Amino acid sequence: MKGFAMLGINRTGWVEKEKPAIGAYDALVKPLAVSPCTSDIHTVFEGAIGDRKDMILGHEAVGEVVEVGSQVKDFKPGDRVIVPAITPDWLSIEVQKGFHQHSNGMLAGWKFSNFKDGVFGEYFHVNDADMNLAYMPDDIPLESAVMLVDMVTTGFHGAELADIELGSSVAVIGIGPVGLMAVAGAKLKGAGRIIGVGSRPVCVEVARFYGASDIVNYKEGDIVDQILALTDGKGVDRVIMAGGGAETLEQAIKILKPGGVVSNVNYHGSGEYLSVPRVEWGCGMAHKTIRGGLCPGGRNRMEMLADLVRYGRLDPSKLVTHVFHGFEHVEEALMLMKDKPKDLIKPVVIIEK
Amino acid sequence: MKGFAMLGINRTGWVEKEKPAIGAYDALVKPLAVSPCTSDIHTVFEGAIGDRKDMILGHEAVGEVVEVGSQVKDFKPGDRVIVPAITPDWLSIEVQKGFHQHSNGMLAGWKFSNFKDGVFGEYFHVNDADMNLAYMPDDIPLESAVMLVDMVTTGFHGAELADIELGSSVAVIGIGPVGLMAVAGAKLKGAGRIIGVGSRPVCVEVARFYGASDIVNYKEGDIVDQILALTDGKGVDRVIMAGGGAETLEQAIKILKPGGVVSNVNYHGSGEYLSVPRVEWGCGMAHKTIRGGLCPGGRNRMEMLADLVRYGRLDPSKLVTHVFHGFEHVEEALMLMKDKPKDLIKPVVIIEK
Amino acid sequence: MKGFAMLGINRTGWVEKEKPAIGAYDALVKPLAVSPCTSDIHTVFEGAIGDRKDMILGHEAVGEVVEVGSQVKDFKPGDRVIVPAITPDWLSIEVQKGFHQHSNGMLAGWKFSNFKDGVFGEYFHVNDADMNLAYMPDDIPLESAVMLVDMVTTGFHGAELADIELGSSVAVIGIGPVGLMAVAGAKLKGAGRIIGVGSRPVCVEVARFYGASDIVNYKEGDIVDQILALTDGKGVDRVIMAGGGAETLEQAIKILKPGGVVSNVNYHGSGEYLSVPRVEWGCGMAHKTIRGGLCPGGRNRMEMLADLVRYGRLDPSKLVTHVFHGFEHVEEALMLMKDKPKDLIKPVVIIEK
Amino acid sequence: MKGFAMLGINRTGWVEKEKPAIGAYDALVKPLAVSPCTSDIHTVFEGAIGDRKDMILGHEAVGEVVEVGSQVKDFKPGDRVIVPAITPDWLSIEVQKGFHQHSNGMLAGWKFSNFKDGVFGEYFHVNDADMNLAYMPDDIPLESAVMLVDMVTTGFHGAELADIELGSSVAVIGIGPVGLMAVAGAKLKGAGRIIGVGSRPVCVEVARFYGASDIVNYKEGDIVDQILALTDGKGVDRVIMAGGGAETLEQAIKILKPGGVVSNVNYHGSGEYLSVPRVEWGCGMAHKTIRGGLCPGGRNRMEMLADLVRYGRLDPSKLVTHVFHGFEHVEEALMLMKDKPKDLIKPVVIIEK
Repeated sequence: MKGFAMLGINRTGWVEKEKPAIGAYDALVKPLAVSPCTSDIHTVFEGAIGDRKDMILGHEAVGEVVEVGSQVKDFKPGDRVIVPAITPDWLSIEVQKGFHQHSNGMLAGWKFSNFKDGVFGEYFHVNDADMNLAYMPDDIPLESAVMLVDMVTTGFHGAELADIELGSSVAVIGIGPVGLMAVAGAKLKGAGRIIGVGSRPVCVEVARFYGASDIVNYKEGDIVDQILALTDGKGVDRVIMAGGGAETLEQAIKILKPGGVVSNVNYHGSGEYLSVPRVEWGCGMAHKTIRGGLCPGGRNRMEMLADLVRYGRLDPSKLVTHVFHGFEHVEEALMLMKDKPKDLIKPVVIIEK
Repeated sequence: MKGFAMLGINRTGWVEKEKPAIGAYDALVKPLAVSPCTSDIHTVFEGAIGDRKDMILGHEAVGEVVEVGSQVKDFKPGDRVIVPAITPDWLSIEVQKGFHQHSNGMLAGWKFSNFKDGVFGEYFHVNDADMNLAYMPDDIPLESAVMLVDMVTTGFHGAELADIELGSSVAVIGIGPVGLMAVAGAKLKGAGRIIGVGSRPVCVEVARFYGASDIVNYKEGDIVDQILALTDGKGVDRVIMAGGGAETLEQAIKILKPGGVVSNVNYHGSGEYLSVPRVEWGCGMAHKTIRGGLCPGGRNRMEMLADLVRYGRLDPSKLVTHVFHGFEHVEEALMLMKDKPKDLIKPVVIIEK
Repeated sequence: MKGFAMLGINRTGWVEKEKPAIGAYDALVKPLAVSPCTSDIHTVFEGAIGDRKDMILGHEAVGEVVEVGSQVKDFKPGDRVIVPAITPDWLSIEVQKGFHQHSNGMLAGWKFSNFKDGVFGEYFHVNDADMNLAYMPDDIPLESAVMLVDMVTTGFHGAELADIELGSSVAVIGIGPVGLMAVAGAKLKGAGRIIGVGSRPVCVEVARFYGASDIVNYKEGDIVDQILALTDGKGVDRVIMAGGGAETLEQAIKILKPGGVVSNVNYHGSGEYLSVPRVEWGCGMAHKTIRGGLCPGGRNRMEMLADLVRYGRLDPSKLVTHVFHGFEHVEEALMLMKDKPKDLIKPVVIIEK
Repeated sequence: MKGFAMLGINRTGWVEKEKPAIGAYDALVKPLAVSPCTSDIHTVFEGAIGDRKDMILGHEAVGEVVEVGSQVKDFKPGDRVIVPAITPDWLSIEVQKGFHQHSNGMLAGWKFSNFKDGVFGEYFHVNDADMNLAYMPDDIPLESAVMLVDMVTTGFHGAELADIELGSSVAVIGIGPVGLMAVAGAKLKGAGRIIGVGSRPVCVEVARFYGASDIVNYKEGDIVDQILALTDGKGVDRVIMAGGGAETLEQAIKILKPGGVVSNVNYHGSGEYLSVPRVEWGCGMAHKTIRGGLCPGGRNRMEMLADLVRYGRLDPSKLVTHVFHGFEHVEEALMLMKDKPKDLIKPVVIIEK
């Protein structure tokens, strides 16, 4: 089979591989729609997870089951499925501790295009199929469904970790696709005022669609000053970090009220430290909580998110600005994520014929 | 001053009283808009809280500050304010324990038309004004603002106590005004499917507006059977009890999945017991949690709820089906709540000239 | 192999069966120590779970691994292990929802002597061995270790569900072995005053050892009256139900402060309903939360509990009043649980030679 | 009246002042026992809170009520009382948000020897007496009671913020008096293994008394290496920071498992930043939560802590290594905290005659 792969750091290309073999609990899936992620760019062009040789890229897909292992009960060839980016080993002690994302090691619930071939192949392997696949409802378009597997679950996890109360004011730093879903997630968790921090017009418009009541543009001045000015110097109840570099933590603490929460869902790929400003952190005494975590994956999560789409609570389609048809466009779509043209939020490649 | 009062059980009428005297931390407020509540009906016509003599009725109001005590810092005569139905004694040990609703005794945070004269007077008294009043934003219509003080905070508390997760399925039993706000609250907390249980067409229509995806009519069969049928026999993740009698707890447990939560915000005025069905409660082992509580009051709550209206998260105006102009219509409005005509959800009396 | 079994309702006896076959993820274990449970009595003599034919009894054991399936990684023959009473299917959607106890159905995480042969056999079968076994530390005596698998995890779960704060006052209704562990658990979670409700002198003495500061004897009067008298009419912050019948819920609500929690870990085997008294439940408004759940099982739980013993936080040995040596004494031990002599808390049968 | 004061940075001395005037809700209290705190040293000799002129020092006291305002209901002259170091304005919006410590501003619940004269005077002023005083039980020695007001509530808050589960492994960095109470608090919240980090023999011995199972001495090597070695490279479930400088946060993250919590109750007086190490924080994705907060104060907290002493859950007296008799010894006691002789944990001055 063919796949679009990282050949090594800074090098991508098509590779020919054997179809993955599956075990008793696994499934073989062919993609119906895939989407490249900024993480794929970090992986290939920044070496964020180290070198890899001929590893097929991609971790965002919905697909069709082609083959299942002997112990798989709920899925059969032909089933159309949502495939979460995070596919944990459910038989691991970390699951018992409540953190499937870290099954068998910190962040190790993330397998596709990290420890094993990703979803940009003609076929891909899914472990624990009954636990890691979810039926894709017929009435959700492929473009929307493929947003659930990473963008929605990640952005929403930012809102969940932020522990939003009804009416809380929330600042979302970064309004790329994850940040936009953090905005939508904050609205869905009951936020009142939502301040989005970003600059690209295409994102600003969609941020307002998803619930941002204010936009702060970092190109127009220090965001700490701007947000304090908007809030009479008081700051906000919650901050979600969904973009920017290591400096965002300092900004987040500075705009946060005592008793507030900072929640990070941005992958920090560089810098030795994130800095907590001592004075604004109340010399350690301000009850400003700092959280951050990899998005939840697995079947139940995907079913819950799909229900939000089915019952009209969320329309993820506004994230998708570019749609390609045909597997061969995966490369082009990936390069869009690298080049970030002005009108891009997320590209999707529809493979279904 | 004049007020519309409970003269005794089953008897109402206008009374003439002295304007309330205020202490150092208190305020005197005149109502700008009031709304009668089903509780007023229970109080007068069912003797739910026992007998009262010439007690002015009403606990739902927004108003204008007329006078403040010497220690009041944040409000002054002329300020337009939201007045929560629950006005706790903030200097009480229960506040320190996290339950202001029960300040100085179970449910004793509820004072208006319970322990003291209510808001259906030309003036009324507010204790701890800096803690129990909130500025009313100019851009919220009076009809909407007066819904915040009880209907919204109560219905939303149902959603809060239910501990809804993103995508949870929720049944709301009862879709009167509190139940409708439980529907809206469930949506705001991230529910997926929301099943409203009710029968009156006016309420059904508004329930759909606020987010109900399904309606179950108890006149068309047992609601337990109907909801199990709708959910492939599995039941729902959460149940909010916002209407009905003591029997609703049994129904709620029967339609709830293991690990689920029942949340009650309905005032149960009759019956010796609510019954928990042993088998469906897993013989005590099913992790089906039962909660219930009086709505939060106080200033911060009102400010948070007002923000939800200001930032477009909630439009409470759909609750208001009947609007009267003039203080003298309070009696007429109250009787509407008693008679419940077909097209009624909530009446409001606008007093402002 | 031999096993002591329920032959049918009200009939017990030794049976001869094939050694259980194990699958790829399973283990075969031989018991080193077992303990009969009141549930075994309910099962056989009250038909609590319905009829069973020749089902080997028992769900409390520690043992030695005899054989493991091909996919078991962490255990091998000869390993000495703690075997939780609750051995869930970890590949189930309920695990993803946070309730392994209800994997594949309400209470269905309980398999031994319920859906399959229990631990009173020469050998028994353990599903998902890597997830459901825990190494038994050498320095924990067998008598103590076998208390962890049900008595400790159940009693402690009562304390966990009760959401105890530092200094909370707690009443524990029932001071049999589960109730005693609820007392110990309440102390370990930081309770201040702990009121144990019971009457048997052997239990009273041990309750004081585990942390009860007061004892209320139901034979000396109504326990509601007694506990209200002890607490100046205010009641307690938390109640754990670890014994008694359906009437305990009513008592629990009556002695609970507003904002409090009732937590049930007693298996309620009879009665159609448990009753919530309307008035004392604040007409549904008192924020008196009611919880109840089957004890956590699985490997991580056993490791955490074993650590509590290893680090001197808990000495479960005081629960064990009768020790037998030799597998053949299982019947005698079980009958003790039925007859409940005056000096009994729990019997243990040591099988190791 | 006389008081021992900060005359300015680096200067202390006795001053003569008017007795404080009290308002309607306040009380005037004379100390029965006081204890100097490291914070007093930071205040005077490091200028931690800026300059102060003739401000009476001290915030740890138990005392006797001398006079009460007209609105004080529960206390009267002659009552013996526990006086929390944190005495919030209970009529503040932050109380409604659940953070009384930050009433009217970040950390502003701390008043004594910060915004107003402290407790090292012949008399001192207590705001909101009914809310900020607690009866001192007769059976608690003064030395123990005075430990509750800051050391116990602070150390225990470290354990509370750490969200300890039954059996969690906990490292406590710093085993001065606050750290020792964090050890005791961790044990009271159900920790299994507790690793204390410190070096002074007097503290090591008392740490073991309060529940430390292991001691790591930072003088014997890097504490991160030592703790990882003790835990097979896995680290611990929870870390409480109760001493050390800004570098402790980095250490804490490095020894923490994914899904863990770091809880800070150390006042960080210097450095611009605390540093979160990016890689060990899982690039922002490890679910390693960071919390920190000022200790709870107020009446309810003191009553709950006093109950822990009354019911034998805690013996704070082991913290007190030096006892003086007579008010005039306040200076000597304070200087002990500055000089930290080898055998010191905490000094107490008993004033009662």
